[in-house]
Amino acid sequence: MKDKLEHKDRIYFEVRDYECDIQGIVNNAVYQNYLEHARHQFIKSRGLDFAEITKQGIYLVLIKAELDYKRSLQGGDSFYIHTAIERVSKLKLNFLQAVHHSDNDQLILTAKMTVTSTTKEGKSIVDHLVAS
Amino acid sequence: MKDKLEHKDRIYFEVRDYECDIQGIVNNAVYQNYLEHARHQFIKSRGLDFAEITKQGIYLVLIKAELDYKRSLQGGDSFYIHTAIERVSKLKLNFLQAVHHSDNDQLILTAKMTVTSTTKEGKSIVDHLVAS
Amino acid sequence: MKDKLEHKDRIYFEVRDYECDIQGIVNNAVYQNYLEHARHQFIKSRGLDFAEITKQGIYLVLIKAELDYKRSLQGGDSFYIHTAIERVSKLKLNFLQAVHHSDNDQLILTAKMTVTSTTKEGKSIVDHLVAS
Amino acid sequence: MKDKLEHKDRIYFEVRDYECDIQGIVNNAVYQNYLEHARHQFIKSRGLDFAEITKQGIYLVLIKAELDYKRSLQGGDSFYIHTAIERVSKLKLNFLQAVHHSDNDQLILTAKMTVTSTTKEGKSIVDHLVAS
Repeated sequence: MKDKLEHKDRIYFEVRDYECDIQGIVNNAVYQNYLEHARHQFIKSRGLDFAEITKQGIYLVLIKAELDYKRSLQGGDSFYIHTAIERVSKLKLNFLQAVHHSDNDQLILTAKMTVTSTTKEGKSIVDHLVAS
Repeated sequence: MKDKLEHKDRIYFEVRDYECDIQGIVNNAVYQNYLEHARHQFIKSRGLDFAEITKQGIYLVLIKAELDYKRSLQGGDSFYIHTAIERVSKLKLNFLQAVHHSDNDQLILTAKMTVTSTTKEGKSIVDHLVAS
Repeated sequence: MKDKLEHKDRIYFEVRDYECDIQGIVNNAVYQNYLEHARHQFIKSRGLDFAEITKQGIYLVLIKAELDYKRSLQGGDSFYIHTAIERVSKLKLNFLQAVHHSDNDQLILTAKMTVTSTTKEGKSIVDHLVAS
Repeated sequence: MKDKLEHKDRIYFEVRDYECDIQGIVNNAVYQNYLEHARHQFIKSRGLDFAEITKQGIYLVLIKAELDYKRSLQGGDSFYIHTAIERVSKLKLNFLQAVHHSDNDQLILTAKMTVTSTTKEGKSIVDHLVAS
């Protein structure tokens, strides 16, 4: 995965108790929330805003999600998410994301999230994200 | 995918407005909630209970999730989820799941969710699910 | 509360495992989701659609929520929600809601949710809901 | 409310896009999540841990929630929550909470959340929280 990383970013989180389920660990679906937030922060760090882009009628749509769950997180755990992107085609790109525990850098989860623009106008967005 | 289906099940849902996001469609992460519920109902239909299994110290853990998003659902939409399983190894199995719109049977999403038991005792659970 | 009930409605739910937290019971916040869904269904049963109303620029806004938690629900529990309304003023109304366990009709929660329209146009909506 | 405040605490949040609904604002139920997290952080700042307390068989249970929604928050907004407590009786206390926008200190929401311990052993927890 490393060779394909064109950009690196890291944002920090802390698990909230309400995100944990009966097993006392973060529910599987909640990681998709975390990852979405990390992608939107990534986009913001490149000078764009997801809600703004949407308002302009340019939809960035998730078409494929692949998540590999390695370890689990518990309430109160601190962790960070790395986000990088690689272009797949004119209108399509992959977000390559990894969740690590903050205390010991243990790998919690890796994900490849494929996003496409549904309109030609999205090309400039993809261009901008890949170039910056 | 059809050849690999060993079991078929279907449960029905209706999208609730709070499950939709700014774009007015069901948030990507919410599908993982739906799919988890469908898997637990599948297990229940085979005479087992996820919470009970967990209490007995047998953990069924999601280790890989692959979701292909084809179309989106909106508030008020009715849909159903098919769940089937295939054995991967002694302690591991795949849940093959598909979300369809109820009105026109259009395919919304397919998913392959790989689950493993973390203890040898889980083998009998996997045996039971695959056999029934 | 009974005297004030002008309308009665009942919708049925089943607790999903992902709605439960570390204590193995439905998380407190999730009841607000349930109650919102019941209110939107109530509105729908009167021939209106919450999303449609919103698109027309008429915002029905929750300004006060009072919830009394009596008992808790667990994964797999079946329950129903009664919803009734009472008018407070021209643009304001209370949703009086009660959650009961389906098996034994035990009271789980009561709620008074005060909603107001932020525009004069909302008066006809309030009129319609109270009259029907 | 000020006179009753025996303790003051503040924690900071940022609205994540997935917490917003069709109206583009934070969904009403999500505030209960925020408030719960703030209460658990408050407890932690007094040297206690909610999950630990629960494991010891001492349940702190929310029995009443009163929320006054004044203004709404949008995706990306920064805000903070003040939490204070007042004792109601031997085993019961109120969390008095207020949500403010970080940019202009505008009041977004106030809440009074009544919590009780369901076992006598909880008295020492309540004593500790009120005294510290």
